Amino acid sequence: MRSYYPVISALGLILMIFGLLIGFPLTVSFFMHDGATAAYDEALFITFAVGFAMWALTRHSKRKLRTRDGFLLVSATWLVTPVFAMLPLMFYLPELSVTDAYFEAASGLTTTGATVLSGLDTLPISINLWRCFLHWVGGMGVIVLVVAVLPILGIGGRQMFKAETPGPIKETTLTPRITETAKGLWFAYVLLTVACTIALWLAGMDGWNALIHAFSIMGLGGFSTSDASLGAFNSVPIEAVTIVFACAAGLNYATHYLVIVQRSWRPYRYDPELKYFFLVLAGSTVMLTAYMYAQPDHADLPTVFRLVIFQVVSMATSLGLTTTDYATWPVFAQLWILFLSSFAACSGSTGGGIKMSRAMILYKQVFAEVLLALHPSALRRVKFSRTPVATNILHAVLAFGFIYMACIIVLTLVLGGSGLDLISAFSAVIACLNNAGPGMALVGPAQNYSVLTDFQTWVLSFAMLLGRLEIFTLLVVLTPTFWRK
Amino acid sequence: MRSYYPVISALGLILMIFGLLIGFPLTVSFFMHDGATAAYDEALFITFAVGFAMWALTRHSKRKLRTRDGFLLVSATWLVTPVFAMLPLMFYLPELSVTDAYFEAASGLTTTGATVLSGLDTLPISINLWRCFLHWVGGMGVIVLVVAVLPILGIGGRQMFKAETPGPIKETTLTPRITETAKGLWFAYVLLTVACTIALWLAGMDGWNALIHAFSIMGLGGFSTSDASLGAFNSVPIEAVTIVFACAAGLNYATHYLVIVQRSWRPYRYDPELKYFFLVLAGSTVMLTAYMYAQPDHADLPTVFRLVIFQVVSMATSLGLTTTDYATWPVFAQLWILFLSSFAACSGSTGGGIKMSRAMILYKQVFAEVLLALHPSALRRVKFSRTPVATNILHAVLAFGFIYMACIIVLTLVLGGSGLDLISAFSAVIACLNNAGPGMALVGPAQNYSVLTDFQTWVLSFAMLLGRLEIFTLLVVLTPTFWRK
Ligand SMILES: [K+]
Ligand SMILES: [K+]
Repeated sequence: MRSYYPVISALGLILMIFGLLIGFPLTVSFFMHDGATAAYDEALFITFAVGFAMWALTRHSKRKLRTRDGFLLVSATWLVTPVFAMLPLMFYLPELSVTDAYFEAASGLTTTGATVLSGLDTLPISINLWRCFLHWVGGMGVIVLVVAVLPILGIGGRQMFKAETPGPIKETTLTPRITETAKGLWFAYVLLTVACTIALWLAGMDGWNALIHAFSIMGLGGFSTSDASLGAFNSVPIEAVTIVFACAAGLNYATHYLVIVQRSWRPYRYDPELKYFFLVLAGSTVMLTAYMYAQPDHADLPTVFRLVIFQVVSMATSLGLTTTDYATWPVFAQLWILFLSSFAACSGSTGGGIKMSRAMILYKQVFAEVLLALHPSALRRVKFSRTPVATNILHAVLAFGFIYMACIIVLTLVLGGSGLDLISAFSAVIACLNNAGPGMALVGPAQNYSVLTDFQTWVLSFAMLLGRLEIFTLLVVLTPTFWRK
Repeated sequence: MRSYYPVISALGLILMIFGLLIGFPLTVSFFMHDGATAAYDEALFITFAVGFAMWALTRHSKRKLRTRDGFLLVSATWLVTPVFAMLPLMFYLPELSVTDAYFEAASGLTTTGATVLSGLDTLPISINLWRCFLHWVGGMGVIVLVVAVLPILGIGGRQMFKAETPGPIKETTLTPRITETAKGLWFAYVLLTVACTIALWLAGMDGWNALIHAFSIMGLGGFSTSDASLGAFNSVPIEAVTIVFACAAGLNYATHYLVIVQRSWRPYRYDPELKYFFLVLAGSTVMLTAYMYAQPDHADLPTVFRLVIFQVVSMATSLGLTTTDYATWPVFAQLWILFLSSFAACSGSTGGGIKMSRAMILYKQVFAEVLLALHPSALRRVKFSRTPVATNILHAVLAFGFIYMACIIVLTLVLGGSGLDLISAFSAVIACLNNAGPGMALVGPAQNYSVLTDFQTWVLSFAMLLGRLEIFTLLVVLTPTFWRK
């Protein structure tokens, strides 16, 4: 037990900070008189007290955190914080089950945005603020996790962003130490969130909705203040702003930071993923607009384009806000946008899925294998960002691509085995594993996840966490080898 | 054009031989007076004449076949022979469209066993014989392709069976030359087919049905003489014989050959896939029997077991014969047996899917990556058959696993885009890509593939050929690079 003290101590610190964050909706609730104040003070006290106890009882351990502890700390943080994040929801909505409350909180922190709640429009403003604030905090966590922690843990080829390639991080002044890196990235994150809030406000949202949705958009979360999601606003300017900032959030925050620090657009030009990210979005928009316009009962072209570009960008970036019930679209269009969510977002963004960088390497490697079969003597190495990809990184990325698909199959089988229909099961797994949000059929954009059984809800909570922790981080902790002395 | 002469000449020879094979159903039809004789003589003549013309016009080319030609010859053979194999079907059934006839013939030769025909019970005996004989001939082709040709072409890690590991082929007297290897494997194939015919006959089938079904079983094809498939016989002994020989056909024929030659069971013990093949079959049978018995409206245990073990073995080996309409089973059970068809069959068998050897390597590599994340310094190499897997083979297998899944996604999207419902599209792609046969929903075990549009039928014909040629063989030929001078 004693050997876990450093992890427990660090987790205690994180919980104390997380407890203090509950002060934000508490303050808002207090000044807005929205009747939810009582839900927060208890939650704040419990979270801070538990965190303090954990920290105080174990802080005398002087041992430093090692790689092994890193896996445990990261996994434990993402598994445990939803337990405390759900407290305000449970206190305000006593009829909410623990299963559903944990799902909602995990959906917030993992920036998945799948909800079990309905009647969002009538909830107190501070509750909706808390839900979307979880996205924003989760997004902060993700950025640090992916850019600073996972490369050290060496998960799924993440190391390539550390030293092997002259990627955006290495060639500049970003210091390798986690805290400095985190500060730089958070600076870009906060700045973009402020800009997004102002833009949404200028586009016609009231101040609170603008802030709440900016949290949701920059974290690529997808919770909203209405059951109709962003469709409730029915506003072209708001949709345009959302599209712009969803695209920004889908890029590598490290690149944003460099642009801000260097006061030059050049880092965007050298980002190895950016071009393909926009190519995929633009190509899919054009293709699906044409496809939808070719349907027998199509609307006029501007309307079709407006609907398609929003759902494409929102799902491809894994934001998951919607402006229409696209469950009424042909199944091909639904599948396509669900498919986009699995790879379009860039590394170092708040998006989900396998990320554009891995998708590029996987594509190139498959292509290289085809050529290799043709010219066995040719020594062809897959390049990323103009540099050959090291063998260990290539293995890691290939294994990641494979296990990602294996997770989809296994979890779909588990949900199917529990009685869920195949389309709902498959799409729910993809939507949760990619941290995208809406799926198809029973869990489609106009539905919500409350129809699922407790077992199915837990499976999907697990899928969200698995996706957010890039699968391996959590898998490593779940192996018996990890716990062996 | 001249540079393709050696390929055209070889293809001409293959077609001449294939034309002569049409003499088999012709003879049977002649002596059985089943009224289909006229369908064969024309087909025989056309096939032989075309083959002869191709060979005669190009035979003066003295250049030997190179690796590049190998890809073209293999792909062309599998694409072109169905064109001639479908002639007897078209002549006897003039209402059959070219699309459907090609699908049926390709389904036969690729040993997929998906059919567009109904009213099988009333067809002349020689037509059903021809359909199942295509399975058997296709199975012969597959064995040679996989064991002798693909290792030379270096497809998807097949080389590992050639020289890199002390697998069953290398450690013994099997000569490496294609013709010798082929003869040995065919000897085992013919011997097992004879044994299967006798066993089916002893189990109660009449002679012709025994022979026809032996062709279907040993090629792991799945065509039958009845719309109700093997369910029409409703006989425990026949099902038991089918299970035993389907398992035999799902093993590596090279291992069978060694057992026959060495007159010892030892080669089975050293086959690196055999143990896992039977473990998967046994585990799935036990699990699904328990699952089906736990359903509210279950039958008695022996009946459940009898149904489960037959469908599990039949689908896992990718045979695809059925004894019940398992579309009425819970979706989990249907998905599970479809899932089994994607990996359970061994290399060098007549089965489809990625094969047990690749599945084992993929599983071990993912597991190794998890351990590697935990102990970055540990140098851990994936082993197969007690030998470390070479890096190039590992890459090839990982890329194969990835592109296999990518094909499923892309082809499902294409079928979905053409208007097919998602479950039918997904299951049809898996059933055809794995050369298994029955899918789910519209293409389920009690349905047939005639409900599909022409476009969808061609897509699935392509899927069968793609699966049978282990994807890369066909992909290589489809790249522009291949055709560049
Ligand atoms: K999301
Ligand atoms: K089959």
